[in-house]
This record gives sequence, C-alpha cells and structure tokens, in this order.
Amino acid sequence: MAAEFSMSRRIQFAETDMAGVLHFSNYFRLMEEVEHAFWRSLGLTVYMRERDPHLSWPRVSVQCEYFAPLRFEDEVKLHFVVTKIGSKSLHYDVEFLRGEERCARGKATAVCCKTDAGGLFEAMAIPDEIRSRLQ
Amino acid sequence: MAAEFSMSRRIQFAETDMAGVLHFSNYFRLMEEVEHAFWRSLGLTVYMRERDPHLSWPRVSVQCEYFAPLRFEDEVKLHFVVTKIGSKSLHYDVEFLRGEERCARGKATAVCCKTDAGGLFEAMAIPDEIRSRLQ
Amino acid sequence: MAAEFSMSRRIQFAETDMAGVLHFSNYFRLMEEVEHAFWRSLGLTVYMRERDPHLSWPRVSVQCEYFAPLRFEDEVKLHFVVTKIGSKSLHYDVEFLRGEERCARGKATAVCCKTDAGGLFEAMAIPDEIRSRLQ
Amino acid sequence: MAAEFSMSRRIQFAETDMAGVLHFSNYFRLMEEVEHAFWRSLGLTVYMRERDPHLSWPRVSVQCEYFAPLRFEDEVKLHFVVTKIGSKSLHYDVEFLRGEERCARGKATAVCCKTDAGGLFEAMAIPDEIRSRLQ
Repeated sequence: MAAEFSMSRRIQFAETDMAGVLHFSNYFRLMEEVEHAFWRSLGLTVYMRERDPHLSWPRVSVQCEYFAPLRFEDEVKLHFVVTKIGSKSLHYDVEFLRGEERCARGKATAVCCKTDAGGLFEAMAIPDEIRSRLQ
Repeated sequence: MAAEFSMSRRIQFAETDMAGVLHFSNYFRLMEEVEHAFWRSLGLTVYMRERDPHLSWPRVSVQCEYFAPLRFEDEVKLHFVVTKIGSKSLHYDVEFLRGEERCARGKATAVCCKTDAGGLFEAMAIPDEIRSRLQ
Repeated sequence: MAAEFSMSRRIQFAETDMAGVLHFSNYFRLMEEVEHAFWRSLGLTVYMRERDPHLSWPRVSVQCEYFAPLRFEDEVKLHFVVTKIGSKSLHYDVEFLRGEERCARGKATAVCCKTDAGGLFEAMAIPDEIRSRLQ
Repeated sequence: MAAEFSMSRRIQFAETDMAGVLHFSNYFRLMEEVEHAFWRSLGLTVYMRERDPHLSWPRVSVQCEYFAPLRFEDEVKLHFVVTKIGSKSLHYDVEFLRGEERCARGKATAVCCKTDAGGLFEAMAIPDEIRSRLQ
C-alpha cells in the first residue's frame, strides 16, 4: 500500500519572480520540503549523518508539469505519494493543490546512497529497517 | 535546422547544499539562464514588456536527469538546443557539460503567452517576427 | 509600545550550503518571512495590490550579525520587534533563536512606497489606517 | 594599499521578485560572488578543502544599503574593496554600479576559520601565506 503524506505551506515573497508568480524552479524546493517532512513523519531524516557512511537520497530524475500559477501568500497543499520502491530507489509524486484546484504535479526518483562530505555518492540497497518503515 | 546556443558558467557557493553539490533545483535556474541568453543572442528578450500586452514564455513542463554532481567552482558548459517549435510552444533541451563529461540533461516546454503584471497568462500563437528568428 | 510577533520555522535542505549550514543570505529571507507574517497578523499584506497605486515596503537598509550557525532541520524561532515608526519608514529587529540560544540578529528599515508593476517606487507617508494598526 | 577587484554580472530572472526587481537578499549572493572571484584572482579559493583542517571564511556581520533597484537583464558592476585585515578577520565593501549609477553598497566581515564538514567553525589567525597575498 502506498505511503502518503500531506502538508500545507504558504508561498513566500522571495519565491516569486517578476512575472508575479512562484518561480518554476521553486516547485522542486516544495517537492523536497514535503519529501523531507515525509521522512521525519517516519521518524527518519533524509540525510543520515549519524550513520557511517552517511546515507542520503539524491535525485536521479525529476519533472514537473504546471497547470495554474501559484502566487504570493497562496496556501498550497503538497500531497506526496510513494509510487514505487525499487531495490535502491524511491519513486514519488507530489500534487500541488490550492483548495480543490490542482496547480502542478511533480515526479521524482531518488536513490539511496552512501554519501561522503565532499559530495561523492554511491548507490546502495535500501537498508531493511528503512524499507520496512516505507511500506 | 535546430537553433543552438552555448554558454559557460561557474557554480557558485550559494547554489550548493550541505551534500557538497549543486542543489538539484538549481539546474533549472541554469536551464533558464541559457534559455534567456539564447533569446538575447537573437536580439530579443524572454519578457517583452515593451509589447502590449506583455509577452513571456512560462514553462508548462520541465524535467532533468542527473548523471554526475556538479560542485562549487566547477565551470559548466550549458548547451541549449531547440528541439521543436509548435504553433504556441517552444521545446528545448539543455546539456550540462563539465569538460567532456555530461553531468545532467534537462528538457523544457515553454508557451508563448500574453502576460499581465499580476501573473495572468494566456497562450497565443508565436508572432511571425519571433518565429522567423527562432528558425 | 512596541509591536512584536513570533513564529517558528524549520531550516530546509535547499537553504543550506556546502559548509553544512544555513547560507548567510537566507537569514534575510527568514527576516522577510516573519515581517510578512507580522503584516498578516494585523490583517494586512506587505504588497497591497488592491490599492491604487499599489503599496509596498522595500528595504533601504538591512544588516545581520551571526553568532552560531543554523543547520538543516533546526527549528528556529523568529522574534520580530518594531523598533521605530517614522513618517514613511518602519524599523525592526529580528532575533533568531534555537531554544534559548540566540544564533543571529537582523535589523531592517523598510519604506512605505507607491509601487508600480515595473518596479518603480516612490516613498510616501504611512497611511493612517496602517499606522494605527502598527501601534 | 587596499586590495580591489571588479567583475560584471547580469541580473537573472530567477533573482527578481514580484515587485519586478532584484530581491533584496540576492544582493548578498552577488557580494559573495565577487568575494569568491577575488579569492580566485589571488590563486586561492574561499573554501580550502585541500587543507587539513579545512579553512573557510564565514561572515560574522553583513549589511547592505539600497539606493536604486536593479532589474532583470541589468548589467551590474560589482566593485570589491578590502577595507581592513585583522588578525583573524577580513573586512570588505562592495559597490553595485549600473553604468555610473551607484545602486547599492554592501559591507561584510568574514573570519578565517578551521571548518569541518558538519558546519563547525573555529576562528584562527590568518595564515601568513594567505595574508601576504591579501596585501
């Protein structure tokens, strides 16, 4: 059964651009915020510094479709759904909802990686104790 | 024949994250920078405020695949290629190259829109004088 | 008597840099977030588009002192205090608190301005109905 | 004699906000860019990972005054001047010039620090080989 998580978040002034709307790159920051809140809801964190080696979840692929622009002070509901758990990867969708209106939809694939402080990543099988919480 | 454009750009400190790499959302800002530099190379600008109504090119769909992380002070070559020109839309790819290494590849679809200052957009046919420069 | 307002906010991953801490420029975005939440707490908004001309509050001077770095997932309390209301200007301080620890302190001066969509600003006396709510 | 350095940089779309101007926090990112380009002009880098311990220059205090807004596609000259070199600290000013017009002026104090990957900093005397290049 799919893991799901939702949070609401107000659009901030610094996130808008001169067209008067949420800059298209910032939808990915909102996708990250709800992903990280999802990890916390499981009692985990996306960047596990207390493990040796560190474990984190860099994305290998992301996308977003935009249906209606979000604006300053809009309250947006971010609905996160895990769509697939591979041996090393996590696939998820994020819906951006303003009330009933679906404003955007994002998708991402993140890979479980051994991580060092210099930004070197090596993919690894998702540890069982993490996999069990994801399901 | 495809319109192409390239520029180089150094990765800045503020664009990195605690994993020591260019944050995944910032690849979209680099895609935008090379797109806008492409418009300037045609003698145009992406946000035409001198037209009435204003004309701009919001994206309706974007994606990025990540092959190798970019880091602080890396010099990245952004190679922009128009892949399709529709009646109202512009499709393009951006390659992220560090020397010979392809680090990421992005895709975007932008739509020619009448734009007002409050962030309302209405799709319109690409004006002929713009279309002729794109080809 | 001074107007005050507080909110809490978690530090996000995209706000960190490769030194593993909240990037110094992002403290100003947090200062802006608490300022704007303060306006909302008065039943107002910082960018009044329904007025003609528009009214907004660009800063003419800001500063920040850093005492201890904030990190990913830290919960920071932002304590906003109006320190002076001039004829056209609003002066405020923001404390950044992690538990009992004061991590940073910012100051800003914003000026009440007639604003057009192209980013032209003209300072104006603070309207009475806004001034009365500030006090 | 003061160390000086200048570079030019175009304002990008993602750096603007819905008021149509460069967001006030982004002036600090430009200040950082010219500071880091200054370090490179000395044959150094601001974040010395090849040293053990790492050496970096976090700011302890920054400020900016805004005189005229910068806008999308403006070409801004950033003029960086070292104003004081303390035993552990570096003080500098940055002027933001659009042609002859001074649009903003920033100031910063950075401190030479031993740095670990987890974002712990300890102030240290500026090493002689760095001090000699600064002068």
